[in-house]
Amino acid sequence: MTKQDIPDIVVGRLPFYLRSLQRMQQEGQQVTSSQELGARLGVSAAQIRKDLSQFGEFGKQGTGYNIQFLSNQLRKILNLDQVWDMAIIGAGDVGTALAHYSGFRNRGFQCKMIFDNTAEKIGKTISTLVVKDVVSMADEIQAAGIKVAMLAVPADHAQEVTDLLVEAGIKAILNYAPIQLSVPVGVRVENIDPATHLQRMSYYLK
Amino acid sequence: MTKQDIPDIVVGRLPFYLRSLQRMQQEGQQVTSSQELGARLGVSAAQIRKDLSQFGEFGKQGTGYNIQFLSNQLRKILNLDQVWDMAIIGAGDVGTALAHYSGFRNRGFQCKMIFDNTAEKIGKTISTLVVKDVVSMADEIQAAGIKVAMLAVPADHAQEVTDLLVEAGIKAILNYAPIQLSVPVGVRVENIDPATHLQRMSYYLK
Repeated sequence: MTKQDIPDIVVGRLPFYLRSLQRMQQEGQQVTSSQELGARLGVSAAQIRKDLSQFGEFGKQGTGYNIQFLSNQLRKILNLDQVWDMAIIGAGDVGTALAHYSGFRNRGFQCKMIFDNTAEKIGKTISTLVVKDVVSMADEIQAAGIKVAMLAVPADHAQEVTDLLVEAGIKAILNYAPIQLSVPVGVRVENIDPATHLQRMSYYLK
Repeated sequence: MTKQDIPDIVVGRLPFYLRSLQRMQQEGQQVTSSQELGARLGVSAAQIRKDLSQFGEFGKQGTGYNIQFLSNQLRKILNLDQVWDMAIIGAGDVGTALAHYSGFRNRGFQCKMIFDNTAEKIGKTISTLVVKDVVSMADEIQAAGIKVAMLAVPADHAQEVTDLLVEAGIKAILNYAPIQLSVPVGVRVENIDPATHLQRMSYYLK
C-alpha cells in the first residue's frame, strides 16, 4: 500500500498510539492489547486493529502487542527513526516556550534555530539557542537542510514568513499564528490555536 | 435540532469559519460567499453550506453572507455571546505564555486565575494575574464558578489535577500535558501536543 492510499485521519491517530505505547514503556510494561490501548485512548479496540492492519501485522491474536516492537514499527512508519531538525520562527512567548520544551527530543524532533525580527531579541540566548535575525532565515534554513518549522509570529506576518519558509525548502509547518496559511502542494501545515479548541468546547457548555 | 444531533466534526469546523469571518471583518470586508470562505479555509463551498444549514438559514442564494450577521450567529451557536472565565493550571513556560496571550479576549475567553505548586512561582505576577497556590485551586475555581481550565502541568501530575478540576466544577479542559486524560461524561477535553502534530507531518516527509 502506498502512502497516498492511507487516509490522513488514520495517519493522524498513529502519533497518539505511539504516545500511549511510550508511556506504557516508561511505566515498565512490555505487552499490551488493542483493548487496553483503546481504553487508554477512548477509541475502540476494533478501530486500533483496523488502523494498524493498514501497515502490516504487528501482533498475534490472543498474545497482544509487544510494546517495544510496535513502538519501533510506528516510529518507522512515521519516519521517526531519525531526529528531525526544526527552526522556530518568532521568539515571543510561544517561541520561547517551544525552545525550552524538553519533550521534542524523545519524540523525534529537535530545535536547531530560532529567529526573530526585533533588535532586542536578536543575539539573546533561549535554552541553548541564540536568536538570529529573521533576515538570514531563508539562507540558514536552506544551508542546514531543515525541513520542519514552527511558526510563532503574529498573524499579520504569518503568510509572508510562510512564503519564505517554503522557498527555503521547509516541508512541514506547525503554525501557531491564528490564521489559515496558504502553501503549495507538497508542504504540510498543522495548526495550533488554543482559541479554536476552546470554542469547540464552549458549544457544549450550556 | 438538538445539540446531540449535530456531529462533533461539524461543530469543530465552526470556530474556523468564525475565525476567517473575523479576519475578513478586520480587513474591512462586509459580505462573503461560501466559495470565498471555502477557498480561504481549504474546504469546499458545499461543505460550508451544508455545515451552516444544520443550524439555520444565514444567507440568500446569490447574495452571499453578511459577515457581521453570520459571525454573530456563529458566536451564539458556540455560546460565545458571553465571555468565559478560565483558570490556568501550571505557571511554567506554557502557562506563562497562555497568561500573556492577548488573543483570547476577542474570541470569547479570559484568564482569571493561574495556579502553581512551586514556592518560587506562587505570589509572582504574570501579566495581570498573581500566581496562586494550587492547594487553593479547587475552592477558588468553585467559588468563582469557573467552567473552563487550561492544563499546563507535567504529564505525571495531569490526571490528579484533572480529577480535582472536575470535582471543582470544570466542564472544559484544554490539555497541554502530553497524556490522555480520563474524565467523566459531561466534561470535555481538547488536547494540544505539538509533538503529535509534528509526527503527523513527518509521515509525509520522505
